[in-house]
Amino acid sequence: MCSRPVPREPLHRVAVTGGTHGNEMSGICLVRHWLQAPGELQRPSFSAVPVLANLAAIAACRRYVGCDLNRTFISTFLTAKASPDDPYEVTRARELNQLLGPKASSQAFDFVLDLHNTTANVGTCLIIDTNQDVFAMHLCHHLQLQNPELPCRVILYQRPGEERFSLSSVTKNGISLELGPQPQGVLRADLFSQMRALVAAVLDFIELFNQGTAFPAFEMKAYSIVGTVDFPRTKDGHLAGTVHPRLQDQDFELLQPGAPIFQMFSGEDVLYEGESTVYPVFINEAAYYEKGIAFFQTKKLTFSVPALPALTSACTPGP
Amino acid sequence: MCSRPVPREPLHRVAVTGGTHGNEMSGICLVRHWLQAPGELQRPSFSAVPVLANLAAIAACRRYVGCDLNRTFISTFLTAKASPDDPYEVTRARELNQLLGPKASSQAFDFVLDLHNTTANVGTCLIIDTNQDVFAMHLCHHLQLQNPELPCRVILYQRPGEERFSLSSVTKNGISLELGPQPQGVLRADLFSQMRALVAAVLDFIELFNQGTAFPAFEMKAYSIVGTVDFPRTKDGHLAGTVHPRLQDQDFELLQPGAPIFQMFSGEDVLYEGESTVYPVFINEAAYYEKGIAFFQTKKLTFSVPALPALTSACTPGP
Repeated sequence: MCSRPVPREPLHRVAVTGGTHGNEMSGICLVRHWLQAPGELQRPSFSAVPVLANLAAIAACRRYVGCDLNRTFISTFLTAKASPDDPYEVTRARELNQLLGPKASSQAFDFVLDLHNTTANVGTCLIIDTNQDVFAMHLCHHLQLQNPELPCRVILYQRPGEERFSLSSVTKNGISLELGPQPQGVLRADLFSQMRALVAAVLDFIELFNQGTAFPAFEMKAYSIVGTVDFPRTKDGHLAGTVHPRLQDQDFELLQPGAPIFQMFSGEDVLYEGESTVYPVFINEAAYYEKGIAFFQTKKLTFSVPALPALTSACTPGP
Repeated sequence: MCSRPVPREPLHRVAVTGGTHGNEMSGICLVRHWLQAPGELQRPSFSAVPVLANLAAIAACRRYVGCDLNRTFISTFLTAKASPDDPYEVTRARELNQLLGPKASSQAFDFVLDLHNTTANVGTCLIIDTNQDVFAMHLCHHLQLQNPELPCRVILYQRPGEERFSLSSVTKNGISLELGPQPQGVLRADLFSQMRALVAAVLDFIELFNQGTAFPAFEMKAYSIVGTVDFPRTKDGHLAGTVHPRLQDQDFELLQPGAPIFQMFSGEDVLYEGESTVYPVFINEAAYYEKGIAFFQTKKLTFSVPALPALTSACTPGP
């Protein structure tokens, strides 16, 4: 894990990706629409490129067909010799690395916005790898200022020492947009419109930056992932209980030690045994059952983000 | 389609099935629990048998692996010679037909309760094939009387002239319980508890009947399916718009001609062009995208249901 340098040049090569998970419909439908009608993705200094990421999974309307694409952008997969036994997503990760990267190279795209949905009640959520991503932190702050009516929370997803593994790690800068709750395989008009407006606001921010706008330093709260909690399970690994009604849909709300987190099928409550308060997120997300995660534990931290200086070589708008 | 004769004997052979669709979690988790702890399914005159229906789909957490099991209980599949090319669900339908049927035979189980979830906002919904199922209509009426706080609506699913195709058609009597909204692959504690209570109430009704209770004639409102409406689509078959925010989550609410039903990605509204008012149900159900159904149109009809006479050979409770 290393910090991403603040851009010193305008961001011209920008991508918007949907369908990294093939059953998260808002991004899939937006990107498909923009592939036919790209006007919305144009700004004076750049045109964002719409990309459908996991084509096979989108066709099957499943999160993935072989393995989770959004965990495959690591050097083990990206640099290994291709084999006919590779899962589809490993092959596709290499293709996307060629298209948008190569990762950590000077040829990589300047920015990617990766569009996601969750079944959890997270509202509007911005996911960045670490607080060291200064450009991304400024972008998130801008979105929060632009949308005072939306709780537009920032999650720092990367754990200390982890290699960046997500699609957004392939480009020089990037964030993921996560909107919920929306069932897998369903497109809700409200979330579709909200995601569309947020994408526009992201592109507007990049345009401001490209035009030479400076952004002052600020302090920002963000939720940093510190652990995960699995469902109670039988010895066969099946569910033995589920998320407690008092925890369900309470993403980003304080969870105290001793509060109920699960309701067992046999009737008892399971209480939270953590040593300190946490803020649970991605509570009861469908895709995480198989990963052994009923919710993530996060800490709410305040970060001082340095100023984003104006470009010295800012664009002038086209004619 | 033919009416099912009113039972003249106690119902001893009763099954409760979950996982007919492998990603509808309430029934799967209840049935799995009852396979280990069947006490809740026992009544003085019978013990209901818990059955996981679509084993391969449950393991994959998908609706089905080859084809929709709940559409395969038709004579074409049940009576054809087995072939290695048969989809898994056709083979499984034959197994379930042996276990719970054979369909339309005197050896068939007396009753099956088939447990389902939907992503649509239907609340508590009871699905029976036709208003000619007198025993099922009485059961539904009983559940409505027992749960005055729940809008416990009855849908008549079978279209005129259609062969019965659902799992519940294999036994002498049966209904499906449909609770929503719940995302595919997610278990919500509230719906789990609600389904559990409804199953208990169904078994209690059967027990009352077995003990010799007579049930008087009554009038009942039910929603009869009269048609379906597909999403707006591009020439490639992809979505060109989605359910309008004013229709989303409005299952069982009156839809007038001229009201908006879809919002196109290009911005315009699509208005309902039906000739008369209908009551839409299963609005924006994830599993119906591939079936070309954005919602079902139903008519709300009132039926006169004849009395259910007391058994002359009622059970006496065991010691």
